[in-house]
Amino acid sequence: MEKTYTIDEAMVVAIEEAKKGIGLVSPNPPVGCVILSPKFELLAKGHHKVFGGNHAEIEALSQVDNKSDLEGAHVVVTLEPCAHKGKTGSCAMALSKFKLASVTYGITDPNPKVKGKGELILKEAGVEASRYRPKSEFEYLIDELELLIDQFKVNILEERSFIALKIASSMDGMVAHQSGQSQWITNSKSRQVAHHLRSIYECTAVGKNTLLFDDPKLNIRIEGHSEKSNKVLIIDPKGESVGQMNNLNLTKYRSPEQIYIAVGEDHFKKVKRSKFSILRCPNKEAGLLDLEGLSKVLYQNKIFSAFVEGGAFTVSAFAAQNFFDRFYYFVAPCILGSKTGVSWTKSKEIQDLKDKLALRLNKVEVLEGDVLLDYSRLYQKNVII
Amino acid sequence: MEKTYTIDEAMVVAIEEAKKGIGLVSPNPPVGCVILSPKFELLAKGHHKVFGGNHAEIEALSQVDNKSDLEGAHVVVTLEPCAHKGKTGSCAMALSKFKLASVTYGITDPNPKVKGKGELILKEAGVEASRYRPKSEFEYLIDELELLIDQFKVNILEERSFIALKIASSMDGMVAHQSGQSQWITNSKSRQVAHHLRSIYECTAVGKNTLLFDDPKLNIRIEGHSEKSNKVLIIDPKGESVGQMNNLNLTKYRSPEQIYIAVGEDHFKKVKRSKFSILRCPNKEAGLLDLEGLSKVLYQNKIFSAFVEGGAFTVSAFAAQNFFDRFYYFVAPCILGSKTGVSWTKSKEIQDLKDKLALRLNKVEVLEGDVLLDYSRLYQKNVII
Repeated sequence: MEKTYTIDEAMVVAIEEAKKGIGLVSPNPPVGCVILSPKFELLAKGHHKVFGGNHAEIEALSQVDNKSDLEGAHVVVTLEPCAHKGKTGSCAMALSKFKLASVTYGITDPNPKVKGKGELILKEAGVEASRYRPKSEFEYLIDELELLIDQFKVNILEERSFIALKIASSMDGMVAHQSGQSQWITNSKSRQVAHHLRSIYECTAVGKNTLLFDDPKLNIRIEGHSEKSNKVLIIDPKGESVGQMNNLNLTKYRSPEQIYIAVGEDHFKKVKRSKFSILRCPNKEAGLLDLEGLSKVLYQNKIFSAFVEGGAFTVSAFAAQNFFDRFYYFVAPCILGSKTGVSWTKSKEIQDLKDKLALRLNKVEVLEGDVLLDYSRLYQKNVII
Repeated sequence: MEKTYTIDEAMVVAIEEAKKGIGLVSPNPPVGCVILSPKFELLAKGHHKVFGGNHAEIEALSQVDNKSDLEGAHVVVTLEPCAHKGKTGSCAMALSKFKLASVTYGITDPNPKVKGKGELILKEAGVEASRYRPKSEFEYLIDELELLIDQFKVNILEERSFIALKIASSMDGMVAHQSGQSQWITNSKSRQVAHHLRSIYECTAVGKNTLLFDDPKLNIRIEGHSEKSNKVLIIDPKGESVGQMNNLNLTKYRSPEQIYIAVGEDHFKKVKRSKFSILRCPNKEAGLLDLEGLSKVLYQNKIFSAFVEGGAFTVSAFAAQNFFDRFYYFVAPCILGSKTGVSWTKSKEIQDLKDKLALRLNKVEVLEGDVLLDYSRLYQKNVII
C-alpha cells in the first residue's frame, strides 16, 4: 500500500518544495505545491523554480501524465493560487479546469489587488478551496509559511526593498577591539552559512568604512554555487568611496553597474559622474542616510532585497533607526569585554526601556560551537514584551 | 520479542537515569546505570538518588530479583564504578560478585586516588571491564558524560566550589538602562528555567548592589518543588550589606546561617560579629575579591557549587577575572543599544583580540522566543578559536 498523507503532512512537503526556490524567484515569493490522489497518496509535487518560469501549481500539474488522475484530487499549496494573468497565466484558472476535490493554500495572497480572488475563481468552478488550518501540532507551519513570503510582502505592501542584517559577534555583542584590531570571530561553518545567505538576497551591502578598511570581494563563495556575479551596495552617505572604487577588489568580481553606491542627497551633487550606479538617497540628518528611504530607492532600482553585512557602524545605524526586516545574528563562543570592545549597537540609544526594539525569533541553528539566531523585526512600535 | 539494546543505546538510557540525580547528590556526581540481559534486553536501571544513598550500580542491582539473571549480563554505567569503600561500599566489589559478561563505563573516575582502580577490581574478578567507546553517531554522548561530572571534577581536582554564572540580556548584551532603570528582559518561561537552575546548585549568589537595589527573595519557585530553603551567597567585598541584612527579604526565606556574605580580607575586620555566615576572602585588589580564592573558601565551607545570578557588575567581575566554570546565557529577542545600556561585561577589558575568553557551547534551548545558550569555560588560556 502506498503511503498516504494528511493535509498537514502534505503542507510540510509543499513548504520543503517552496524552500528550493528561495533566492531564485525574486521578486516573486518562493511557492511549493503538492497534489494528492483521491486516496491521499502523493501524485505530484513542484515548486516555482525561476522568475518568469512556471508557478508551483503548474509545475506540479505538469508532473501528472494522465490528467484524468486529477479528478477528485487534493491540491496543497503554500500560497493562494494567483488570480491574475501574470507572466504565466492565472494558476487558479489552470487548477479550476480539473475536477479537483479540494485546494488548500497556506497563506492568502498579501497583494490587496488579488487577495481572495484565487479562492473565488476556484469556488466558482466548484472546487472546495480554503485557507490551511493546521492541527495543533502543525501550528508552527504558519510561521514557516509567513516567513516564505516575508520579502514578497514588504515588496508588495510597502514598495520598498527587504533589508536583512547580519552581524557576527562575541557573546557580549562585540565585533572588534577599540584599537581597530579585528579578525574572524566566528568559525568557518558560520562563514559558509553567511555565504549561503548572501546567495539568497539580491545584493550584498556594507558600509563605506568596511569597504575601505577590509577591501572585501563580497562575492558568493559556496561549493557548487554558480559563479554568477552578485550586485553589491555600498552605504556611503558622503560618497567618499566613489573615487577609490577602481582600485578595490569589488570591481574584480562584477561589472561597474553592479556596484551600487548609496549617497545622501546632501552630498549627491559633489559626487562625480561615474560608471558605477550611484543612488541618491534621502538624509536622516546631515551625513546620515534615511535607511527606510534607502530601501525605497533600492526598490525603485529593482533591487528587491539587500543583505547588509556590516560593519558595526552600519548595522548600528539600522538598529538606531529601528529599521530592518530580518536579523541574522551569529554568536561566537567567546567574551571580548565591552570596556575595550566595539559593540554592534554603539550608536543606538533609547530614552526608556519601554522603547526597546522588539524582534521575533524565527529559528536557531547550531554551527559547531557558534550559534545562528534568526529574527524578524516586529512591526508594532514601542512594544513591551 | 523484547526490545534489545546496543551498548550505545544503553548508555543513552544510563545518561537519562543519571540526570535524574542532578542537584540532589552533590558533592557526589550524578550517575546512572543500566543492566542488560545476556540477550541485551533491559533487565534493570537505576541512578544515584541522594547523597549518602545507594550508588547507581547498587540501585540497578537491587531491581534484579533473581540474582542468577545477572550471569552473563552487561552493565552500562556513566562513571567508572567506585573502588573505595565510601559511605556505601565499593561498587566495583559489589559488581564483581556476579558472573557478569561485561561492564562498560562512560568516564574514568577523575579522582587520581581511585582512577582505574574500579576497572582493575572488575578485571581481577574476570569481568570484561572497559571504558565506553561510542560509535560515531553517538560521539556526542562523550560531551554529555563529561558534563555530568563537571562539578565533581572541579571539586575533586581543584578543591574549590564550581561556579555557574547566569545572565539575561538583550541580543546586544545589555541588562539595564544606564539611568538605573531595569525590568524583566526575558520571558516567564526563561525565568522558570532559571529557577530550575537555582535548584540544581548549592547556593544562589548575587552581588551586593543587586541585593540592596532589588531586595530579592532568591528562593526556589518551581511548581512541585519542595519548599526546602536554599543557601544564598552575597558577594560584598566591603561587607556593606551586613548591617542591613535584617531588613531584607532574604532573611524571610532561610535561617541566618544559610546567608553567606563574602567579604574581602581588607574589610573583614571592620565587619561586626553577626549571626550570618561571614566568609573571609582574598582580595584581587583593594575593594575587589579574588574570585578563584572565593571559590576555594566556599569549598572549605562545604558549599560545593554556586549559581551566580548577577547583577552586571558581579558577572562582569567574573568575566574580567576569566574565572567561572559554566555560563548560562539567556538572550531576549530585543535590542537595547549600547550607547545608553549597561553591558554584562562592562568591567572586562583585553589588550588584544587573542586574549579573548573562549568558551565551549554545550547546548541551546529555545524558550518561547528567548534562547538559552549553555556554555562551559575552556581552561586553556589565550586560546584563539
